[in-house]
Amino acid sequence: MSEMPGRESTREVRLTDSSRVEAFTDGVFAIVITILVLELRPPEHEDGGLLRGLLSQWAFYLAFLMSFLYVGIVWMNHHALFSRVRFVDRGLQWVNFSILLTAAVLPFPTAVLAEALHGGNPTDQRAAVALYALVAGLMSAAWIAVFPYLRDHPQLVEPGTDPAYFHAQRIRPWTGVILYTAAGLLGLLAPLIGLILFVVMIVFHGLTSDGVHEAPSLRRRASRAKRHLD
Amino acid sequence: MSEMPGRESTREVRLTDSSRVEAFTDGVFAIVITILVLELRPPEHEDGGLLRGLLSQWAFYLAFLMSFLYVGIVWMNHHALFSRVRFVDRGLQWVNFSILLTAAVLPFPTAVLAEALHGGNPTDQRAAVALYALVAGLMSAAWIAVFPYLRDHPQLVEPGTDPAYFHAQRIRPWTGVILYTAAGLLGLLAPLIGLILFVVMIVFHGLTSDGVHEAPSLRRRASRAKRHLD
Amino acid sequence: MSEMPGRESTREVRLTDSSRVEAFTDGVFAIVITILVLELRPPEHEDGGLLRGLLSQWAFYLAFLMSFLYVGIVWMNHHALFSRVRFVDRGLQWVNFSILLTAAVLPFPTAVLAEALHGGNPTDQRAAVALYALVAGLMSAAWIAVFPYLRDHPQLVEPGTDPAYFHAQRIRPWTGVILYTAAGLLGLLAPLIGLILFVVMIVFHGLTSDGVHEAPSLRRRASRAKRHLD
Amino acid sequence: MSEMPGRESTREVRLTDSSRVEAFTDGVFAIVITILVLELRPPEHEDGGLLRGLLSQWAFYLAFLMSFLYVGIVWMNHHALFSRVRFVDRGLQWVNFSILLTAAVLPFPTAVLAEALHGGNPTDQRAAVALYALVAGLMSAAWIAVFPYLRDHPQLVEPGTDPAYFHAQRIRPWTGVILYTAAGLLGLLAPLIGLILFVVMIVFHGLTSDGVHEAPSLRRRASRAKRHLD
Repeated sequence: MSEMPGRESTREVRLTDSSRVEAFTDGVFAIVITILVLELRPPEHEDGGLLRGLLSQWAFYLAFLMSFLYVGIVWMNHHALFSRVRFVDRGLQWVNFSILLTAAVLPFPTAVLAEALHGGNPTDQRAAVALYALVAGLMSAAWIAVFPYLRDHPQLVEPGTDPAYFHAQRIRPWTGVILYTAAGLLGLLAPLIGLILFVVMIVFHGLTSDGVHEAPSLRRRASRAKRHLD
Repeated sequence: MSEMPGRESTREVRLTDSSRVEAFTDGVFAIVITILVLELRPPEHEDGGLLRGLLSQWAFYLAFLMSFLYVGIVWMNHHALFSRVRFVDRGLQWVNFSILLTAAVLPFPTAVLAEALHGGNPTDQRAAVALYALVAGLMSAAWIAVFPYLRDHPQLVEPGTDPAYFHAQRIRPWTGVILYTAAGLLGLLAPLIGLILFVVMIVFHGLTSDGVHEAPSLRRRASRAKRHLD
Repeated sequence: MSEMPGRESTREVRLTDSSRVEAFTDGVFAIVITILVLELRPPEHEDGGLLRGLLSQWAFYLAFLMSFLYVGIVWMNHHALFSRVRFVDRGLQWVNFSILLTAAVLPFPTAVLAEALHGGNPTDQRAAVALYALVAGLMSAAWIAVFPYLRDHPQLVEPGTDPAYFHAQRIRPWTGVILYTAAGLLGLLAPLIGLILFVVMIVFHGLTSDGVHEAPSLRRRASRAKRHLD
Repeated sequence: MSEMPGRESTREVRLTDSSRVEAFTDGVFAIVITILVLELRPPEHEDGGLLRGLLSQWAFYLAFLMSFLYVGIVWMNHHALFSRVRFVDRGLQWVNFSILLTAAVLPFPTAVLAEALHGGNPTDQRAAVALYALVAGLMSAAWIAVFPYLRDHPQLVEPGTDPAYFHAQRIRPWTGVILYTAAGLLGLLAPLIGLILFVVMIVFHGLTSDGVHEAPSLRRRASRAKRHLD
């Protein structure tokens, strides 16, 4: 583009600050996590059989909880990562967009898994576990590009962030990809084992999650705020 | 994590400011409260019977109103609480996440309650009232941890907030847990009484809600703004 | 509450700034306006009859457009009003909450109206037009309290806002209440006339809407920004 | 309106800053893009036939991906444009509102297209491709007004933005209108060609998208931030 020719170095072009990208991302995650409840429906039941009907829907509650936790943890990781990001360029936009795309699909395999577990046919359960593993694995895979990208584009990063951070984190998505692939393959043999692996992995993700480190920018902001107050 | 070793005390690690957590939380509450309307459907009816069909759906309107008010009040309480919170650490993230989880489930017992009241079978109504009481009680229980947590982590709190505030508020969630348990148990005997208790409690919650106190941070911001204008 | 006794005058208690209330409100309006599309469904049709099926759904498109415009205009009015609001107290929270409640219900009468127009039974159409008028009238009625409230609580208002503004605006909600009541009553006699009145009123609302006046606060912010740049 | 007579020039009247409009717009785009997944449902299938059922739904996956990408790209363009907008007046509100309206409709033709492709009747597929082209073309058409409007209202624009930018961009929406019209007309003859054109255009949109240029305001903000840090 031609505005302000001569004053924009190629490096500076196509940068924007990260706040509106975060707002959009927060919106998508908040919607995905909240519409999961639309799969929980009053059960079909005969007169007086509501309680039994509710209890028989355990698979829907389990699938809801699993996906709710998974989306929540992914959001927390996103939050932790973007507290270290100051600007977003075109490439980071697309990387972020693929994270959103894979997360936005999750309600679909969640519903398929719930119905298959509820229906009880083992062949269908294998297919459902494999589908869930596929989407969950893609959700992990979407994070593969983001850490090298930020390591290689330090101008996007909050000043004071150690590039070693992004280098150290680059392994984590691969763990997800490999374990979800394993869960999917095991699920093809024994759906229950795949299912247990999903739960284990989500708990593990939650426990080891980077959580919400104080990024350098924040410490700076906090100390600035402190000075204001003094 | 290893970035900036030596400069981060263990106390400072894992802090982040509360604004993005608030944005995500606002998103979830806004979606929960708004998708409640998806349960209000044009009634099945014969030609010319729309009006009668609409009137016969009173149970859906009642359940919608109850849950809409409940979510709204919980959001106002969240707003009041977080106006006193400056930073969010991993523990507070998870406490907040459990508040979101229980609130996000509410459309499900709302739909079950509406259908049971509409269907008219007393056994089913007992189950539906008990389920609603269970979820509403869990929504209260999710708040139990938050007040002691903030009392014990003053570094997360807006400077100037009296710790006695969190100490005083710690009783409130227990009231909810006890009263919703009572409503559920009474509802098992007489659904109508459980239902009346729900309405009474929501009105009571609304009237006694802490509302939106001016937090110290705000007063500060306001007076700073004033100085700017002078 | 007891924190900071002696420093909070009764006037200052229960104030908070308006930004999180605006964020929540924006969320609810954005969701209401967007889930209206969920009523637009692929038509039931025989093989090769999709086009005819799509055309026969005109009533759904009309109802969608009407409600989309109405919610959009209400949001713009909210935006215009809150650009003059600096703080939110408990009372204003509840007034705002009733605005949200009535707006969040709109998808329901929209769906009922679309089905009745599509179904073609005149008795049902009368009921549907009356229901839509009722909810639209309540949406107007929810605004009745807000202007006197802000006129009487100048401490909530952006400094520099003329109180005469709120005084002048207090008539507008009544126009909506009266005209929607009229549309509902006329609709009971002749649904088509009620429908035409809805469209006329939404266009009228849009044309006369206060829109987005530059509030004093903004002008101030803009000129401050200008000074920064100089 | 009468507040502050004499101090508001006609130029200044009806301005407001763009942040709340952006928040509302982000909300609508985030919801549209996320509720697209509601069309992906567990397939009807006989016992043990889930996998085959899942595979047979390819048309739903394709339509989902197409619309997800399209909405995402439109949001990125909106983001790029509004990083150059500082204030919003009534006219720009309405232009933005028509962008939201056309985008919010997209889940409907997406569902119609998916069902027609899945159903397999060629006549229906022609109608569905034409409907999708119509809505996609309207989505482009909604952008026609925005560039001339901003060129002619420099007081709304971030200082330092070259008006030539808006002049150069004014062609882009026309490309969309013309190509989607062509895709619709071709689709009437051969649905598959229309479909391929959609995919080509979305990829093309994505590749040529203005993306997220660093707007002058940002560069300013960034350099100010830098000075703060020094």
